[in-house]
Amino acid sequence: MKRVFSGIQPTGEIHIGNYFGAILNYVKLGEELGKNSIYCIVDYHAITIPHEPELLRKRTFDAALVNMAAGLDPSKVILFAQSDVREHTELGWIFSTQTPLGDLERMTQFKDKSSQHSVLAGLLMYPTLMAADILLYKANTVPVGEDQVQHIELTREIARRFNNRFGELFPEPLAVHNKDALRVPGVDGQGKMSKSKGNTLGVLEEIDSIWQKLRVAPTDPARVRRTDPGNPHICLIFDYHKLFSDLDTIQMVEVGCSTAGIGCIDCKKTLMKGVERTLVPIQQRAQELYSTPDIVKDALHEGAREARQIAQQTMQEVRDALGLLNP
Amino acid sequence: MKRVFSGIQPTGEIHIGNYFGAILNYVKLGEELGKNSIYCIVDYHAITIPHEPELLRKRTFDAALVNMAAGLDPSKVILFAQSDVREHTELGWIFSTQTPLGDLERMTQFKDKSSQHSVLAGLLMYPTLMAADILLYKANTVPVGEDQVQHIELTREIARRFNNRFGELFPEPLAVHNKDALRVPGVDGQGKMSKSKGNTLGVLEEIDSIWQKLRVAPTDPARVRRTDPGNPHICLIFDYHKLFSDLDTIQMVEVGCSTAGIGCIDCKKTLMKGVERTLVPIQQRAQELYSTPDIVKDALHEGAREARQIAQQTMQEVRDALGLLNP
Repeated sequence: MKRVFSGIQPTGEIHIGNYFGAILNYVKLGEELGKNSIYCIVDYHAITIPHEPELLRKRTFDAALVNMAAGLDPSKVILFAQSDVREHTELGWIFSTQTPLGDLERMTQFKDKSSQHSVLAGLLMYPTLMAADILLYKANTVPVGEDQVQHIELTREIARRFNNRFGELFPEPLAVHNKDALRVPGVDGQGKMSKSKGNTLGVLEEIDSIWQKLRVAPTDPARVRRTDPGNPHICLIFDYHKLFSDLDTIQMVEVGCSTAGIGCIDCKKTLMKGVERTLVPIQQRAQELYSTPDIVKDALHEGAREARQIAQQTMQEVRDALGLLNP
Repeated sequence: MKRVFSGIQPTGEIHIGNYFGAILNYVKLGEELGKNSIYCIVDYHAITIPHEPELLRKRTFDAALVNMAAGLDPSKVILFAQSDVREHTELGWIFSTQTPLGDLERMTQFKDKSSQHSVLAGLLMYPTLMAADILLYKANTVPVGEDQVQHIELTREIARRFNNRFGELFPEPLAVHNKDALRVPGVDGQGKMSKSKGNTLGVLEEIDSIWQKLRVAPTDPARVRRTDPGNPHICLIFDYHKLFSDLDTIQMVEVGCSTAGIGCIDCKKTLMKGVERTLVPIQQRAQELYSTPDIVKDALHEGAREARQIAQQTMQEVRDALGLLNP
């Protein structure tokens, strides 16, 4: 049985890199696996660096809302906020008691982040909570970015160590990379789209604002004049076409660009049709959900209930194995 | 309003040092404060050093049983096992995200223990869980031994820091020392009674076994012959008289010893009367409870329910202050 767990960062505005890289994958996995696809908005991870309470609350809510607007059906998958299921921090504590301090100190992400922020203990403990997130559901498949591979490796080691000491209980989950996740380029053409670089196109961004960004976005620099043929394979806009446009349009702009049949502005205007076709329905659903926030809250509430059922079953086994009273 | 929280280590055999030092104090506080005296068997602390599951389960149960047999009435106080109330590890996690790593690394107990055992992450995090134990109930008074004073100081700092950042929520609890706790001498006369020194008299130890230990216990070394007068104020047995015997007996042996009116064996036999009067009823109640373990389990279950009511109220406030969704 395949069971997927994925953590969703409650990180404000969701951009098309998140959409094509993660959310569409969640939707697809949800169709394939149903309630064995478990998505958790990890608010208890978010507080390992200093945070603003009101902003965190908004972003946790927004993360649920945007995923739902983008097609994640909470009645088909399990979608919930981490802090709604107390068993996460409980198992996280247990794992911390079984994990050598040195294993945590050598984590690359800890070293990176601890050089940027004052070093809070939670930052060091992050991977034990992450291991708990995954193993609480006995998930065997974890879609993650490259930066999380080391944490998944540690999760496997935590599972292995626990199984050896207390009896076989946990699978050793595998990290699965969604290569697309890494490939959505920023609108400045300077590498991966990322909030920290300020080169994003937001899923909920106004269509006109997206157009203003695309209008001035770099294209093939060798195409100086309208009559110069371009090379779509080095052009940011062509990358976006591959995400937003249908196959006919992609072929049309590929030929048009490389034969100087269309100009860059035409090409961008064509792209906008695909952008609108993709984003406008999402934005409309988002609008509806913002005006009926209880739908989102109820979905998270129900998701937490479903998650808790699995989590409590696992914790019963864990408590039994550890020698805790099991009332 | 005074509210006391005390953690009870699930450490097997309970000796008369624990009885006179801690348990009698719990009973007294319970009579004074009722449900504002909260006693928590800290099994989640016990796993910060390697443990045997079956032993931990037995010791957690035994700790509840012996306290009950010794007079702690679970219907009058709150008595429960830490791992039954998930909010402890939850608030522990939150505090770990707000506590500089350096604050934990400089704890004396961590330095001591980490030199004895392989250093597991939970050992470093111990004081954040301990702070959660206390602050979850907004306890303002914590009876502790000298070795825990530094942890209470850190608890105060965690409370202060949280209040400053997120709004006034927690009291700054005070450590209260029960001087008696430090004064019960070991039966070898070599300082404090302690399990690790193997110089204990167990509360549930067979009366004859206690007698065998007392029979050979050292007395005033200057009293070589029966006719030599002794000095009761440097004699271990006289210390025990002060714990076990009534006032008349204490005066009688004090005079008898210093005038050579009684011999050491007589003095010890007299002591045994007080020992029996104190321990036999406890041992009988313990026997009854061992034969009806559900009474202990039900008491812990009910205690956890009562603890949870307070804990959940606090967590609601904490979640709200932190910006977690509060469903």
